[in-house]
Amino acid sequence: MREAPIGVFDSGVGGLTVLKALAAELPREHFVYLGDTARLPYGTKSPETVARYAVQAAEALSEYGVKCLVIACNTASSVGLPAIRARVSAMPVVGVIEPGAEAACAASKSGHIAVIATEGTVRGGAYQEAILRLRGRARVIALPTQLFVALAEEGLYEGPIAESVARHYLDPLFHHSKVGDPHASPDTLVLGCTHFPMLTGAIRATVGPAITIVDSAATTAKAVRDTLDRESLTRREGEGTTRFLATDSAERFARIGSRFLERPIDPEEVELVDL
Amino acid sequence: MREAPIGVFDSGVGGLTVLKALAAELPREHFVYLGDTARLPYGTKSPETVARYAVQAAEALSEYGVKCLVIACNTASSVGLPAIRARVSAMPVVGVIEPGAEAACAASKSGHIAVIATEGTVRGGAYQEAILRLRGRARVIALPTQLFVALAEEGLYEGPIAESVARHYLDPLFHHSKVGDPHASPDTLVLGCTHFPMLTGAIRATVGPAITIVDSAATTAKAVRDTLDRESLTRREGEGTTRFLATDSAERFARIGSRFLERPIDPEEVELVDL
Repeated sequence: MREAPIGVFDSGVGGLTVLKALAAELPREHFVYLGDTARLPYGTKSPETVARYAVQAAEALSEYGVKCLVIACNTASSVGLPAIRARVSAMPVVGVIEPGAEAACAASKSGHIAVIATEGTVRGGAYQEAILRLRGRARVIALPTQLFVALAEEGLYEGPIAESVARHYLDPLFHHSKVGDPHASPDTLVLGCTHFPMLTGAIRATVGPAITIVDSAATTAKAVRDTLDRESLTRREGEGTTRFLATDSAERFARIGSRFLERPIDPEEVELVDL
Repeated sequence: MREAPIGVFDSGVGGLTVLKALAAELPREHFVYLGDTARLPYGTKSPETVARYAVQAAEALSEYGVKCLVIACNTASSVGLPAIRARVSAMPVVGVIEPGAEAACAASKSGHIAVIATEGTVRGGAYQEAILRLRGRARVIALPTQLFVALAEEGLYEGPIAESVARHYLDPLFHHSKVGDPHASPDTLVLGCTHFPMLTGAIRATVGPAITIVDSAATTAKAVRDTLDRESLTRREGEGTTRFLATDSAERFARIGSRFLERPIDPEEVELVDL
């Protein structure tokens, strides 16, 4: 099983930010990445629908003989993890919420943590629950910032539009502190959607230098490494490879995905699959 | 058959702008509106996938005994109309592209027409073809303006964000005319996506007062009335009703759809269906 690939699942190309962190942390591993581009976005859909789609994707990936499954989509992690674990019970399944919550709790001094995410992730409440499980006295504010997804997909990471959208969402959260009231604003901001790391510059420009911005990609990669070590599944030598599967439009996957992965993807590399 | 409802199909809530025009033009008709909210948006998906989804939706609506089908989604009209007509050959099917193209050709003096739409509609080329069929010497520029969809769904119709996005897309098209070169800019702008009428204010602020903005909702409603008259299918008396079907999330359909329809929709009114 050590030689088997790791399955990585996302609703589209956003999870490629997680794949990038995984490949950096685990350069010897093979990866099969599946983006459900025919049915994206998950972020505005109901929990039942997202869970059903996520289980179908997990089943499809398990047919590629994967040894471990990474749910690199916050919305699917938020509402689909129990259903996926029940369905592919033979292998470890790692989501992005727990690692993101751990990183936030470790980073926050005041215990006041903000999470920005899709509508579905915020409504699902998984970040809020995961943070409060780890740090019972934390104050968590979760805010849907749906336009960030569209901006990232359009490649509008910086400039006046990205910054005015960031101010629209984040100014009310971060700029109401009074003098002598150090706990009024969160000190930590969790990027609870895999699209959002692309917009870190515009977000940073809005919240200022004092806020810790937490991206769950790096901590998820470490959680996957720990899981493989614990289960004696780590590949020991050789160089890893990556295979791309998408449920629609190889051209768009390659074009937009290249930016998220920060390396060119050839449309010929992307295999179309039906779920 | 006169008493039968008219089926209206869209990928989500955008088509409610068309339903509003239909209900104003045909107040005696009953409508069944189906929004495929589980699989939206169609605008970034491949033609094959959109056509497959549209045919499934048309089949579902035909089970409600509809006498006529309106494809109130530009992307589905653009790539799915022949497949839908082949599948539900017993009834008239009206899309939004032809009526929009007719209105644009009638409105344009210079024959230089710009179309803004989703990626899928632009790539499909149906607007460009329909305009050139009607007016062979027209110059047509089609531009994908994907962020307008997200802005409309977020309710950000006006204000600095909507205006900066409008300038981002439209300034290059409308502000490069030189003195003495009256044909350099289009004189007519087609809103080739049912979401875009919500942003007319921000678009108007960018293109200025001299440009004719064409929205296909009103001309589509007239095309439907003509079709019903021609086929002797027009309902003669009584007041019309509307029934809402969605494939996901009745709550979101009601919340966002109310803005598009400009009347409150109760989540209880929205029936969930599976395609």
